[in-house]
Amino acid sequence: MMAGMNIQDTKIFAEGAAYVNGAFVPVAEASVPLTDLGFIRSDATYDVVHVWNGNFFRLNDHVDRFLGSCDRLRFSLPLAKDELIRMLHGMVARTGFDKAYVNFTATRGRLAKGSRNPLDCENRVYGFTIPFSWIAPFDEQEAGIDMIVANPERTAPETLDPTIKNFQWGDLTRGMIEASDTGAKVAVHLNRHGNVTEGAGFNTFVFKDGTLWTPDAGVLMGITRRTVLEIAERQGLDVRVTTVPEKILRDADEIFISSTAGGVIPIRSLDGTPVGNKSNSRVALDIRETYWTLHDDPAYATPVRYDLADV
Amino acid sequence: MMAGMNIQDTKIFAEGAAYVNGAFVPVAEASVPLTDLGFIRSDATYDVVHVWNGNFFRLNDHVDRFLGSCDRLRFSLPLAKDELIRMLHGMVARTGFDKAYVNFTATRGRLAKGSRNPLDCENRVYGFTIPFSWIAPFDEQEAGIDMIVANPERTAPETLDPTIKNFQWGDLTRGMIEASDTGAKVAVHLNRHGNVTEGAGFNTFVFKDGTLWTPDAGVLMGITRRTVLEIAERQGLDVRVTTVPEKILRDADEIFISSTAGGVIPIRSLDGTPVGNKSNSRVALDIRETYWTLHDDPAYATPVRYDLADV
Repeated sequence: MMAGMNIQDTKIFAEGAAYVNGAFVPVAEASVPLTDLGFIRSDATYDVVHVWNGNFFRLNDHVDRFLGSCDRLRFSLPLAKDELIRMLHGMVARTGFDKAYVNFTATRGRLAKGSRNPLDCENRVYGFTIPFSWIAPFDEQEAGIDMIVANPERTAPETLDPTIKNFQWGDLTRGMIEASDTGAKVAVHLNRHGNVTEGAGFNTFVFKDGTLWTPDAGVLMGITRRTVLEIAERQGLDVRVTTVPEKILRDADEIFISSTAGGVIPIRSLDGTPVGNKSNSRVALDIRETYWTLHDDPAYATPVRYDLADV
Repeated sequence: MMAGMNIQDTKIFAEGAAYVNGAFVPVAEASVPLTDLGFIRSDATYDVVHVWNGNFFRLNDHVDRFLGSCDRLRFSLPLAKDELIRMLHGMVARTGFDKAYVNFTATRGRLAKGSRNPLDCENRVYGFTIPFSWIAPFDEQEAGIDMIVANPERTAPETLDPTIKNFQWGDLTRGMIEASDTGAKVAVHLNRHGNVTEGAGFNTFVFKDGTLWTPDAGVLMGITRRTVLEIAERQGLDVRVTTVPEKILRDADEIFISSTAGGVIPIRSLDGTPVGNKSNSRVALDIRETYWTLHDDPAYATPVRYDLADV
């Protein structure tokens, strides 16, 4: 469809590019069959990597997590790892974006005629890239954003493996609406035991009495979360990756979240109460500074192959 | 798109018809935007009604349940109730099917530009109809089908309201794959307390020592479930709609499931062990017989408006 495209064609990708079943199309034209089980049963996994100043951040880590999730869902993808990576470059190259949000998704596909067995399906790969999207704009982040504790319990690992990144956002969407109804920006969910988990697209960190806490289970193993843990270790912080009771959250000196969509973001209030007293997000802002510095580190940054715009 | 269609055009709808954003299209061409939150966050609700011998079964009950779910998700639909019903007639009319599976779906839609608030979206309506689909073929039903108890816990009501019919089938899909791996047909899920809930598209009934049990909570309020309860009451059965412990299931005289996709289906084995001993699905088969008889009852049957094929 896009054969013979040249650099002028980036105009049609001005809002974003997508990959659907082997073809690159403008994001507004990209679609999924109504009967793909990825839609009608949310039988899918996805990942999101971002591009910052022309570089993918931790591209290989995102791709490996995605391929691991596909394996555990018993998906067999039509693209090998190198082809998948080339597709991601090709999408971003078509847009010319130097800062971008890049989603890649695998779905179960459509049921074979007369079959009810999900294992009989031809699995599919989709992707789309749009301008970089923030949980909170960069210039609002230093001051911190407002968080609530959501009413819905986070989906239990006994129901769905949270380390397979998934679209089953019913609890998270309810949390977002609750946050919006109270004027807050984000909502964090507890599990059935009253311990801290995660929220819509982010992991949670709590700093209390010199120790940095984050949940060890029942959450996505976020790539930004991993980056935060690496930075904290390098800084010599006392880190506990373990159960995080609600009380630690309520009594925190600092709370912050980590997300591909925005990096490391301090929380200034929880359910309307200011977080901490005088620490002023010192730990969060230190980690955040290093996080953005790492975007120029060749160990984490993969230059986008903008030459792949027309292949 | 389909203006001026006539009866010859049913050929293009031979595999099924769909409704997408105001237009009727062949089911194979129907799609959802890749960035509809109904896909990338499973932010959607749906319902399934069936057509049997040219009649919808309990059409009004399905539509009312669907509209109630939309309200609770704070969806504002582009179709009023009478337009929605007309759309369902129009889809089936285009196919000419006299037995059909009819799905109708509402999604959150796409995020407004620059917004992260789900309440800012334009909600959408989709639908599709395909030939009637069975959990188990009609002629296999009398002998009963094989069931396993799935490993994943059913999604907790504390996480997601199960009475809002949803596509978050991760636990159910895992159950279906576990069933398939062991040669069984269906998988029933327990909740965190070890009590019986439901499976992929069905409610569960257990008959034990003269009493018919079905869960009162943590499950979809199925329309076929309601029909079974009405029939059982009419038959003077002792019915308990309450917590159903796993032990009752394991010790059952009979187990059966109810589903729009197949009606009332006896279970002959649970985890490889025959169910009951000499009752031979007597209760299930009695209820099943009445269930199919009701399909000719004007109180339940709505004739498809096949004249609406071209409007």
